[in-house]
Amino acid sequence: MAFNYPNGRRFDASAFAKPVAKSSSQSNRGMSLEGDLNDANQFYLVSGQAVIHKKPTPIQIVNVSYPARSAAKITEAYFRQASTTDYNGVYHGRYIDFDAKETTNKRSFPLKNVHEHQIKHLKQVVASEGLAFMIIRFTTLRETYVIWAQLLFDYWDAQETARKSIPYDVIVAQGAQVPLGINPTTPYLVAVDELLNQRN
Amino acid sequence: MAFNYPNGRRFDASAFAKPVAKSSSQSNRGMSLEGDLNDANQFYLVSGQAVIHKKPTPIQIVNVSYPARSAAKITEAYFRQASTTDYNGVYHGRYIDFDAKETTNKRSFPLKNVHEHQIKHLKQVVASEGLAFMIIRFTTLRETYVIWAQLLFDYWDAQETARKSIPYDVIVAQGAQVPLGINPTTPYLVAVDELLNQRN
Repeated sequence: MAFNYPNGRRFDASAFAKPVAKSSSQSNRGMSLEGDLNDANQFYLVSGQAVIHKKPTPIQIVNVSYPARSAAKITEAYFRQASTTDYNGVYHGRYIDFDAKETTNKRSFPLKNVHEHQIKHLKQVVASEGLAFMIIRFTTLRETYVIWAQLLFDYWDAQETARKSIPYDVIVAQGAQVPLGINPTTPYLVAVDELLNQRN
Repeated sequence: MAFNYPNGRRFDASAFAKPVAKSSSQSNRGMSLEGDLNDANQFYLVSGQAVIHKKPTPIQIVNVSYPARSAAKITEAYFRQASTTDYNGVYHGRYIDFDAKETTNKRSFPLKNVHEHQIKHLKQVVASEGLAFMIIRFTTLRETYVIWAQLLFDYWDAQETARKSIPYDVIVAQGAQVPLGINPTTPYLVAVDELLNQRN
């Protein structure tokens, strides 16, 4: 059964699942971009490279009950519209902020995957000199890229009069590809470093 | 009715309330530190000085129902233990991270107001060169201070063999007081600037 947020975004129950114990099985690896990023963030945290967390989904709580001898149970609540992106944290003292999106398209990244509030927030981050970017996975191609938020803004702001997607070729040329890893499978900070080096 | 998180922390329903429309009335101002900080963060965001948000409370969702023509309704969910502090964001490109606490004590700040996971997270932030601090309000004295997380660590790590609180005098001497403001009422970045200037 597919759940949707009020904004039409798909509800991903895995986002609320407790982290499972690590096993030697690779069967759960590479299944979703979000799972891969959680693994990467855990690796970066434990190895002291960066402190990056996924933000909890905002919930409006209306009713809570207190069953005897049990934890407080929320019996009525609603999803609220987020006002930021899903991920932020610190990397060598710098603030980093990003969202992550998957597409089955092969030739372009459709802008309908992005929401107005995410663009607004990323623009605020750039204005405050934070590092703002987007992680895009082409699931069919099994390729993942990091692009600066500015590239996203360029296409977003022009979409009324121009195309409503970012061409794959542009993402390849201006972004940095995330190499395939073992642990973590998606070491996206390698791609962020590459973009930072190009900028310097 | 007072609600508690599984960790014994008090549940503050106002944290989940939708922001109310601004009115010229000052009657709701200065009522809680959290409300004051939300006002300050909104002011800093709109004025372009910083992008700082309070993180949503993490919730484990178990059941969602879909009443006809209505928004998705969460019918069973539980509070989860947070793994970070409540606030983070970017200020002039730098990552800042903090928690905020109130005490009715007049002579010290009891360490029981702080949780282990908050200390752990703040230490990780410091290791990644982020700016980590704590905002402490002495509600009876109507005074609010910003202290570096390091001062908190010093007392936290010694509490088994020494006192279990940070003396008020130490907070006054080593912290920076947040001046009283009109809009925002609690301009805490003024105190953060003061601490940064002392460090340089």
